[in-house]
Amino acid sequence: MTYRVPLQEIRFAMKSLAGLGEVLSSPDFNEADEELIDAVLDENARFVEEVLAPLNAIGDRTPAKWNDGSVRTSPGFRAAYAKFVEGSWQSLPHAPDDGGQGLPRLLSAAVNESLHASNMSFALCPMLTDGVIDALSRVAGAEQRALYLPHLLEGRWTGAMNLTESQAGSDLSQIATRAVPQDDGSYRLFGQKIFITYGEHDFAENIVHLVLARVQGAAAGISGLSLFVVPKYLVAQDGTLGPRNDVWCASLEHKLGIHGSPTAMLLFGDGKGEVGQGAVGHLIGEAGHGLANMFIVMNSARFSVGLQGVAISDRAFQLALGYAKERLQGKGRSGGSQPIAHHPDVQRMLMTMKSLTESMRALAYATAAHQDLSVHHPDADMRARHEAFFEFLIPVLKGYCTETSLEVTSLGIQVHGGMGFIEESGAAQYYRDARILPIYEGTTAIQANDLVGRKVLRHAAFVVHELLRQMNAAGGALDAAAAEHPAYRDGLRIMATELRAGAQAWEEATDFLRQTAGKEDDVVLLGSVPYLMLTGELLCGWHMARAALACSEALAEGKDDHFHADKFASCVFYASHILPRAMQRARAVRYGLVVNRHMAPLFQS
Amino acid sequence: MTYRVPLQEIRFAMKSLAGLGEVLSSPDFNEADEELIDAVLDENARFVEEVLAPLNAIGDRTPAKWNDGSVRTSPGFRAAYAKFVEGSWQSLPHAPDDGGQGLPRLLSAAVNESLHASNMSFALCPMLTDGVIDALSRVAGAEQRALYLPHLLEGRWTGAMNLTESQAGSDLSQIATRAVPQDDGSYRLFGQKIFITYGEHDFAENIVHLVLARVQGAAAGISGLSLFVVPKYLVAQDGTLGPRNDVWCASLEHKLGIHGSPTAMLLFGDGKGEVGQGAVGHLIGEAGHGLANMFIVMNSARFSVGLQGVAISDRAFQLALGYAKERLQGKGRSGGSQPIAHHPDVQRMLMTMKSLTESMRALAYATAAHQDLSVHHPDADMRARHEAFFEFLIPVLKGYCTETSLEVTSLGIQVHGGMGFIEESGAAQYYRDARILPIYEGTTAIQANDLVGRKVLRHAAFVVHELLRQMNAAGGALDAAAAEHPAYRDGLRIMATELRAGAQAWEEATDFLRQTAGKEDDVVLLGSVPYLMLTGELLCGWHMARAALACSEALAEGKDDHFHADKFASCVFYASHILPRAMQRARAVRYGLVVNRHMAPLFQS
Repeated sequence: MTYRVPLQEIRFAMKSLAGLGEVLSSPDFNEADEELIDAVLDENARFVEEVLAPLNAIGDRTPAKWNDGSVRTSPGFRAAYAKFVEGSWQSLPHAPDDGGQGLPRLLSAAVNESLHASNMSFALCPMLTDGVIDALSRVAGAEQRALYLPHLLEGRWTGAMNLTESQAGSDLSQIATRAVPQDDGSYRLFGQKIFITYGEHDFAENIVHLVLARVQGAAAGISGLSLFVVPKYLVAQDGTLGPRNDVWCASLEHKLGIHGSPTAMLLFGDGKGEVGQGAVGHLIGEAGHGLANMFIVMNSARFSVGLQGVAISDRAFQLALGYAKERLQGKGRSGGSQPIAHHPDVQRMLMTMKSLTESMRALAYATAAHQDLSVHHPDADMRARHEAFFEFLIPVLKGYCTETSLEVTSLGIQVHGGMGFIEESGAAQYYRDARILPIYEGTTAIQANDLVGRKVLRHAAFVVHELLRQMNAAGGALDAAAAEHPAYRDGLRIMATELRAGAQAWEEATDFLRQTAGKEDDVVLLGSVPYLMLTGELLCGWHMARAALACSEALAEGKDDHFHADKFASCVFYASHILPRAMQRARAVRYGLVVNRHMAPLFQS
Repeated sequence: MTYRVPLQEIRFAMKSLAGLGEVLSSPDFNEADEELIDAVLDENARFVEEVLAPLNAIGDRTPAKWNDGSVRTSPGFRAAYAKFVEGSWQSLPHAPDDGGQGLPRLLSAAVNESLHASNMSFALCPMLTDGVIDALSRVAGAEQRALYLPHLLEGRWTGAMNLTESQAGSDLSQIATRAVPQDDGSYRLFGQKIFITYGEHDFAENIVHLVLARVQGAAAGISGLSLFVVPKYLVAQDGTLGPRNDVWCASLEHKLGIHGSPTAMLLFGDGKGEVGQGAVGHLIGEAGHGLANMFIVMNSARFSVGLQGVAISDRAFQLALGYAKERLQGKGRSGGSQPIAHHPDVQRMLMTMKSLTESMRALAYATAAHQDLSVHHPDADMRARHEAFFEFLIPVLKGYCTETSLEVTSLGIQVHGGMGFIEESGAAQYYRDARILPIYEGTTAIQANDLVGRKVLRHAAFVVHELLRQMNAAGGALDAAAAEHPAYRDGLRIMATELRAGAQAWEEATDFLRQTAGKEDDVVLLGSVPYLMLTGELLCGWHMARAALACSEALAEGKDDHFHADKFASCVFYASHILPRAMQRARAVRYGLVVNRHMAPLFQS
């Protein structure tokens, strides 16, 4: 079973749900039109289906290998990366000023989804390079930008993010890597970083590390952190590569999944390079602003990880659907063996996978459109408004879509029955691969704290209000459509009922958090992940409501090419099986005061 | 982190929830008392903690190896099995008439839980032997019983169940293995079986295979299936071992988890033994009653697999709790680093794991007590009543506890953060191991069909009615306790509210299935897994309600040894975070008519 990019579904999500038209109406995208977008999607589909997808299982079975500081990637990966560079895929969404193609993030979301779906372990490398490009582009001075960006945008060099240390995971204030100022304005870095994705590999001539470290003598905690650029090979002013820097891969991790992606432990300043003791680095942005600057990369990476959740869900769904259509088991009405896809419970599992995946895709693309409009909308107030929506949606997308990908990939195994537990079937790989998603680039709890603490309880309160207004409007539209289209009436009504119930639950949970914050903050934190999940389920449900409206309209007009009927079924299924979860989460949030009172002694002792 | 048998919790579940007292009051258990039970539990804890638990990770890293038909099990496993035999653990619950110890199933449930928790891959072997003993004991004639049972009960021989073939998984009617009658009354078997757990190994002198096969010329479908006993080595009348039978292990599977447990493909009749062509077998029970007879093993095995869900959940919880208490990250109120167990969201995850595990344990033990009373209650009507409860609970236990173990083991990884994804931490193994549980011995869909089709919609309707009556009574008791104990009032009220809401949702969903059955059976099947999950969540919630009553009573009496306070917190958490799920499932069931109408075209095409 090969992965196929679901082009019709992707185009529907871009055009009918995420608002591609509005994005393209920005003067900044004058040179892009729907035709160009479609051409890029087609070209991308060819690349990922032919080059990346067949390598996915190979990467799983033959992980990257460490040898004396070097890393040899999985068979075929290096050649595939060369084709990735040849196709100029890295520069797609980046600013033309820096040498990028300046295409919408909405398009690159679709392109990156298919990169991750075809081969997540491979696609992690360009994903991190994207983040490093975003950070350098927004924070670095002209000299550093000129030195690094052209090569990164070409894909000839790759980027890596160096945050985690063994004592500093979710709590980055514990970072101990030191940066010692040198007379020439550069720094020498000393320390040890762990869990560095593509921190070492054989894809590219150079690796550009962004490193969080503490200038010698700087304050403890977050405020003492600065961001440094540390290339694997020093770069001369003319762009040529110089001596090997003192950053060294000490080992690779033995992981549950994403075996094709090397996860490095890196030593800075161990004296193993050609520059003497200490990794040579340069400060990026202001000293002490390291975390804020790293957050630019983090937002980019968090968006991408949310998208990975969508991507691996789709891959798992396609594999399961293919198996279910071919595997014969049990009798049909005619008495002969039938494919298991005819069994109602297999259908339930497939519909759960399908509707979760489609709804998450809508959420991801809508988030990307907000990002585009936050930069490219002609009106400054609207840019600020879209920026607020984008910032609000990032933790929801990252937290919800990654948690949900665990459910989807688990169902992918279950559809396969006994074969799902056998590694050869391929379903198990997605289950293993997906498990990192709710962890890296900030765990779900970190996302939930961001959503509640920094957004809902602070400046993004109006986003909740505005989204509730739009959901109520959608409820009204569903009522009207139900009255107009009798064939879809019952489905539209279930959607309206559950959307309203979910919205009310969200509103009550939000009010509860606002009333409790500042009084019992532990109760707020206790409820924050259920609140994030509720937010994700509801926002995805709202997009499915919008999809149901578009589909019932198209079907009533006689556009029945199966796509709209299938999609409508997916929406009704979501309303029946997924949306009701929202209310359950709201109860968990609201009961927090009592729960916390009883369980506190258990863990404080 | 070593596994510790949670003895206080196990004793609470046995005595305060499952009704150990009532079980022991049966005259059949005259020789057993609570003191004996406690002594066995203590001895068992020593054995599993010292011998089995340390081998668990070793089995994962060094799977059983196939070599020319033989299987060498993981390092240390063979010696551990010898100690298992030495401790006479296999015969614990089996009938004294056959040579068993005749102790309650409720006790063996606790003992087996700790076997599985300490080392699930190892414990699968005795688990299957248990099933084979149960089947032979109830179905085989005197000669076969005398020939096999003493050795199986000693543990010197082991048992294996041979059902699945590559074209016959959930649909056993497709079984093609042939049994050719011989002049001496024996049969020769020809065919290929897959996914045979401990179908070959080096633990024991002999392996007793129970094989589902079709007597040459018998009808197609289920009614043509018969059950055969096929020993690896033929057994002479005096019990001595004869020539090697023609059953041959062709390969072992490469699995996602339970690496320490060999999963064999077995060839029957390939001419590789010392008996000529065809595996020598003997019919067990009547010809054509194979599936019914195999169901005796299946009930035993399904109970055990449900228990595995409890066991691996507890193991994952213990590992996560230990890590959370030691791992320092983030600041406490005093400013210094604090264990992550102090973070509210880590507490939420740990409480989810703890309350799910404890509630599933209560369900499992209660089911075992029904099994005891179905055999040993002095009153025949009561035996029949307990039998009906036992039969009703088996698919719930198997389906719900195994699905839920996926959630618990996944949270076990999440608590570990990035370390959870690294295999060395151990959390990933439980996540991988658990994934087989909702599949083998009948997938969750098969359990749900059994629960709905054979139980709820047929003779066990009164069980639902009776359970609802008891839940309503528990609601009243919670109200009374809330009025009496102000310190526990709010928690008891949440429990009462959610238990009543869940019971009502269950009643409505049950009514819906009854009204829909026979009219739209696909809709019934579509709702059957959500219905099973609802049933599990609610029954577990009811046991937690009973636990909350017992704890508030004990606490009010001043018995505050932390255990009851911790347990009460667990109950309130369950009522707040888990029980509300029940209502969501009920909606999915009830919306089935509309959902099915729209999604049918998608899969029937």
